[in-house]
Amino acid sequence: MTTEKIPYKIYLEETEMPTHYYNLRGDMTKKPAPLLHPGTGKPLTFEEMEPIFCEELIKQELDEDSKYIPIPQEIRDFYKMYRPSPLVRAYCLEERIGTPAKIYYKFEGNNTSGSHKLNSAIAQAYYAKQQGLKGVTTETGAGQWGTALSMACSYFQLDCKVYMVKVSYEQKPFRREVMRTYGASVTPSPSDTTNIGRKILADHPGTTGSLGCAISEAVEVATSTEGYRYVLGSVLNQVLLHQSIIGLEAKAAMDKYGIKPDMIIGAAGGGSNLGGLIAPFMGEKIRGEADYRIIAVEPASCPSFTRGKYAYDFADTGKICPLAKMYTLGSNYIPAPNHAGGLRYHGMSTTLSELYDQGLMEARAVSQTDVFAAAEEFARVEGILPAPESAHAIKVAIDEAMKCKETGEEKTILFGLTGTGYFDLVAYQKYNDGVMEDFIPTDEEIAASLATLPEIEL
Amino acid sequence: MTTEKIPYKIYLEETEMPTHYYNLRGDMTKKPAPLLHPGTGKPLTFEEMEPIFCEELIKQELDEDSKYIPIPQEIRDFYKMYRPSPLVRAYCLEERIGTPAKIYYKFEGNNTSGSHKLNSAIAQAYYAKQQGLKGVTTETGAGQWGTALSMACSYFQLDCKVYMVKVSYEQKPFRREVMRTYGASVTPSPSDTTNIGRKILADHPGTTGSLGCAISEAVEVATSTEGYRYVLGSVLNQVLLHQSIIGLEAKAAMDKYGIKPDMIIGAAGGGSNLGGLIAPFMGEKIRGEADYRIIAVEPASCPSFTRGKYAYDFADTGKICPLAKMYTLGSNYIPAPNHAGGLRYHGMSTTLSELYDQGLMEARAVSQTDVFAAAEEFARVEGILPAPESAHAIKVAIDEAMKCKETGEEKTILFGLTGTGYFDLVAYQKYNDGVMEDFIPTDEEIAASLATLPEIEL
Repeated sequence: MTTEKIPYKIYLEETEMPTHYYNLRGDMTKKPAPLLHPGTGKPLTFEEMEPIFCEELIKQELDEDSKYIPIPQEIRDFYKMYRPSPLVRAYCLEERIGTPAKIYYKFEGNNTSGSHKLNSAIAQAYYAKQQGLKGVTTETGAGQWGTALSMACSYFQLDCKVYMVKVSYEQKPFRREVMRTYGASVTPSPSDTTNIGRKILADHPGTTGSLGCAISEAVEVATSTEGYRYVLGSVLNQVLLHQSIIGLEAKAAMDKYGIKPDMIIGAAGGGSNLGGLIAPFMGEKIRGEADYRIIAVEPASCPSFTRGKYAYDFADTGKICPLAKMYTLGSNYIPAPNHAGGLRYHGMSTTLSELYDQGLMEARAVSQTDVFAAAEEFARVEGILPAPESAHAIKVAIDEAMKCKETGEEKTILFGLTGTGYFDLVAYQKYNDGVMEDFIPTDEEIAASLATLPEIEL
Repeated sequence: MTTEKIPYKIYLEETEMPTHYYNLRGDMTKKPAPLLHPGTGKPLTFEEMEPIFCEELIKQELDEDSKYIPIPQEIRDFYKMYRPSPLVRAYCLEERIGTPAKIYYKFEGNNTSGSHKLNSAIAQAYYAKQQGLKGVTTETGAGQWGTALSMACSYFQLDCKVYMVKVSYEQKPFRREVMRTYGASVTPSPSDTTNIGRKILADHPGTTGSLGCAISEAVEVATSTEGYRYVLGSVLNQVLLHQSIIGLEAKAAMDKYGIKPDMIIGAAGGGSNLGGLIAPFMGEKIRGEADYRIIAVEPASCPSFTRGKYAYDFADTGKICPLAKMYTLGSNYIPAPNHAGGLRYHGMSTTLSELYDQGLMEARAVSQTDVFAAAEEFARVEGILPAPESAHAIKVAIDEAMKCKETGEEKTILFGLTGTGYFDLVAYQKYNDGVMEDFIPTDEEIAASLATLPEIEL
């Protein structure tokens, strides 16, 4: 293997694209803890989930055993419009920072939703359509998931109702407009269109909203409207399953050129991108076939891995969703309004939580001014304006590459560049104007939020 | 050749990327008319252009004979970060509209500037750097060119001063912010930072600006500042030369699969995208090796081909730039403020003007509400939100595909999808809200503007 032979961008052929999703749980010896019914405290059954979720997606959610699940042809055809996504060798970044490290990133921003979220949105819309539903409801924070779902629903001609966290709704009018162009309805959350929304507004007047609130509203509408179900863009096992296409493509592209990463770095909010990116590599690690350092990067303002607790918690603020055992900051936790971009969920994927608890991966929290500095440095040499979410991974990738510069080690770094920052210019403007602030919660704030955890042990 | 064998996206290998630009003028039997000095009325010499433009770019501007010009390795390396751009088969669009036509588009939006403009920006920045300049000045309308140039200058660490048409500066604050992120300074035009800007402001208080004004300001700053030159993103021969990479890649990708387009469609503002897309095909047409229908699409609100005059005119409102023989609406022509997006230049590339005059291509003007309807239809099935500029080509491609549906002809259509609409959401919002208007200038308005043409005949 010589670097001369490795192009700037490695594209798989269409014929080399994955035909199956990889279900990491199938390889885990200790499985993630099951979701619990919020009323009974017992593991959720298919029947209990059926009023909320699409049938096929529940099957995927509950499937701990299958290692590979076929990707239906209709989904594979849609993927061909924007996939395979490129695996990029960051030659220009390496040269600019003078590192001997070899840096690769898997770029998921080459579609109009601007992120990896479309990978699961199209799958979820497909299964909803197959079930004969009229439409779906969902929540969105930074807006990437809402945009992705709007695109997917428009493709399959399904109705799409999006509850958008109010602070993002106001800061990102253009995100809202893209969703409208794709035919979705967009409501700022909390809103007066639902019981839970009205209650939250009454209890917390002037709240800027949270993902937890928006989830509660979207679930309420789905369960009370004929022919609708709720879909979610992160956290759930089914979403990690669909996102495994990121890791499968990345690994296939690397294998094609005989490249083996020493470390794999991804931003973690709910965990879907990271879970998808690492899936096949983590599978090898679990099976003892290879070793990789795997690093989850989270915002210092919403540090569920690094400062949260591994415990059962409510998935939503309204406490109507199932309970999940996960690293959590408490379902009442709301990141400071000056926190830019996504990665604002109080909890973390149960699968990733279990892997982290087993010591199979690391986590690191970074502050947002450092993240934007890394974003700008990357943009200026690699020609891509990254989403603030993605820039969390860039920050740690650059940090690790700089360590290699000190030690002279030629490590191979793979990170996930989940999306573009075209709709995050309000945040970039703050950074350019030098008025961006960091927000790090105090120990007391986190302890207060964690005090709301339900007392459940399995 | 079977359609089964043609993937959704055709990517060339890095090793198959063009190594030379193609200079269409080298194959033209009757060359485009030369630029004239605004004072003497005589063809411009290298020496006269030298205070305004970079040396190597002047050589390219004046070179009517070379057919192929090598692309320097540094530029080719930069291209590898976002090129080759995909040639996409619009299977989903074909199915949705039920046409037997085969529709392909060359997508140039997969980079942060969001358009094809980066192809020339990086070349111009490279030659400026080679010449040892400190920086460059330019104007931008919709903002694509300014963004592209900012990215290119940041890569080569050159200073970049952008004069942005005031109406765009106000309607597109995020465009401005991207340029700032890449380190450029952005000034709304007309401004009080130049003599010509102050004069225009005095003569036309409250003007929303025009490309012609902004060009005048940028040129004034370049010629009065040590170590600076002026660069332009469209219209000039050198720009068409750099943009030939679009057509060269498209043709190589089509040749690889034995595809021959019956018609080639592109949006035309100053003509750089269209000129680049059609270059190698037009070359074959001129040499009598093949025949293609070639259609330029322009906005009904700025119809230089379809309602302008083929005559010498000033390139800028301030009348300090060279005169060009081109299809023009008069250098005082300013499209109505409700005109969305770019394609607002009063004139047209001298090369394309000459080809159009020789009957080698057609032109069609379309209204903006029709353009946005086509944009939305395209976005919903093809998953890409197009720039309003690009959507002009989509509109005519769909029209032609619908004609095929009537006649049953399986024509092959190639169009240029020049960029994405992420920064055009104000215009999409107007369209979504049903308040977008069309603007078609009256014959009297155009006649009044054409009355300002200088009296020059060669």
